[in-house]
Amino acid sequence: MNRCPVIAIIGPGLLGGSLALALRARHPNADIRLWARRPEAVAEIAAHPMAVSATTSLSDAVTGAEWVILATPVGVMPTLAAQIANADFAHNCLITDVGSVKGALVHQLEQIFSTGRGRFIGSHPMAGSEKTGLSAAREDLFQGANCIVTPTPSTSAADKQAVIAFWQSLGCRVLSLSPEEHDEKVARISHLPHLVAAVTTLAALRHHPDSLACSGGGFRDSTRVASGDPELWTGIIRENQPAVLAALRDEMDTLRELLEIVEGMDEGKLRDFLAEAKSHRDRLPSGASIYGND
Amino acid sequence: MNRCPVIAIIGPGLLGGSLALALRARHPNADIRLWARRPEAVAEIAAHPMAVSATTSLSDAVTGAEWVILATPVGVMPTLAAQIANADFAHNCLITDVGSVKGALVHQLEQIFSTGRGRFIGSHPMAGSEKTGLSAAREDLFQGANCIVTPTPSTSAADKQAVIAFWQSLGCRVLSLSPEEHDEKVARISHLPHLVAAVTTLAALRHHPDSLACSGGGFRDSTRVASGDPELWTGIIRENQPAVLAALRDEMDTLRELLEIVEGMDEGKLRDFLAEAKSHRDRLPSGASIYGND
Repeated sequence: MNRCPVIAIIGPGLLGGSLALALRARHPNADIRLWARRPEAVAEIAAHPMAVSATTSLSDAVTGAEWVILATPVGVMPTLAAQIANADFAHNCLITDVGSVKGALVHQLEQIFSTGRGRFIGSHPMAGSEKTGLSAAREDLFQGANCIVTPTPSTSAADKQAVIAFWQSLGCRVLSLSPEEHDEKVARISHLPHLVAAVTTLAALRHHPDSLACSGGGFRDSTRVASGDPELWTGIIRENQPAVLAALRDEMDTLRELLEIVEGMDEGKLRDFLAEAKSHRDRLPSGASIYGND
Repeated sequence: MNRCPVIAIIGPGLLGGSLALALRARHPNADIRLWARRPEAVAEIAAHPMAVSATTSLSDAVTGAEWVILATPVGVMPTLAAQIANADFAHNCLITDVGSVKGALVHQLEQIFSTGRGRFIGSHPMAGSEKTGLSAAREDLFQGANCIVTPTPSTSAADKQAVIAFWQSLGCRVLSLSPEEHDEKVARISHLPHLVAAVTTLAALRHHPDSLACSGGGFRDSTRVASGDPELWTGIIRENQPAVLAALRDEMDTLRELLEIVEGMDEGKLRDFLAEAKSHRDRLPSGASIYGND
């Protein structure tokens, strides 16, 4: 990245806003532009101390940009991409995103941008929160987070390396997977826990709402993401339906296995089941602060 | 509690150790005694800066005690209780515990202590951690935690009030339930999330261990308690089997409901399902630091 890059961030939510804060901290001379659909959001950005420009004009946001980052819900990305595909980007402009699904979407976006001057490569920083919006944005959101980049056979080695370096510069640990591998793994490690948090919240409270007064840290943490935005997550699950279904069916089979153990109250099998889960979970470093929040 | 109370804590693990630290901070003049089964644990306590005495003798620990708190795994509580039931407690001694199940156990312990000078009333502070042992003990473990006390028809109003005041003095929000109500509610709000964390960890990683490299904060938090002690949790589930089974069956039914929605990819129903879960989860205050960790 040159010393005074033009960086356009499309979408001023938690991720777009955090990206603006993180980039501003690392590139004091950069021309950082945040596009928002609503004039009210532009006013909010203008009033924010992060010192980036804001506009409702996609063309103004991306003209001359060396980097464009799509940070909207995945469902609207193709429409927005089509509007900027032939914009007057800087020479060698790279476009990436922060979407939670890749697969068909990456191929679609790659195709859309293939007619113009920029090249698209998908990214998914595993950072987020059950909170949404610019007000929840944090400069350190990406620090220590895993980030998956999803090159395709069309991606050049140099472009792939540039996207990896972009996320590394924000503190991410970067992993490269095909869009399809991304969707399968993320269905299990992110979309599944999200849906299960909703299931457990309902199983615990739907018919027994006053049980909440007895809650401790286990319920608090294991269901935190159930407070996420239903609209956003409906879009994610729709886009990754086959892989999510496979993960949900594995959850169902594993839950049935446990139910049978508890029905028969086989202590040896229950201990083994819990010990097997613990051995997998213990592979995760316990220092929570080094992770993002999605 | 008088100004120089004798307090005996039976069991030097995370909860017993944290209790010793919290009581020491609030009662500088108290004679706090921590009983441990193993001489090595006694040596560890003696070397710990928390300044409490330690012994492997149950009799030495509880003689003259105004308060006795059982802080061992629930499975060994009746055996230990039988050994101290007729000890030379202080006049008006109250015995309580920190066990995760009540029901039959409370009635059993009440019966065991009915022959001696002390009276038993069950307690369950919803504080803990996936970590175990004295080394994980924290003075503030109980600060802001929910604590359930479980009086029975035999409990006097004065004793109930004394146990409530005991936990309130450590910073807990105290709730009084019958032992049976406790077990039903805690099966849903604590035992269920614990078991589901193990199920989700296995569904995510058992056949796809390398998915862990893609993890974010959602997986981290929603499966944290799957790192708990399998032995300890096997005992808890065994003691609360009927209520846990009912909760697991509700989880199964709710998971099946979601699976059908995702199979049919009914966006409206998925949004409603996620929104219903969010509405329940949002009732929990988001300030994580005011809660304990179990």
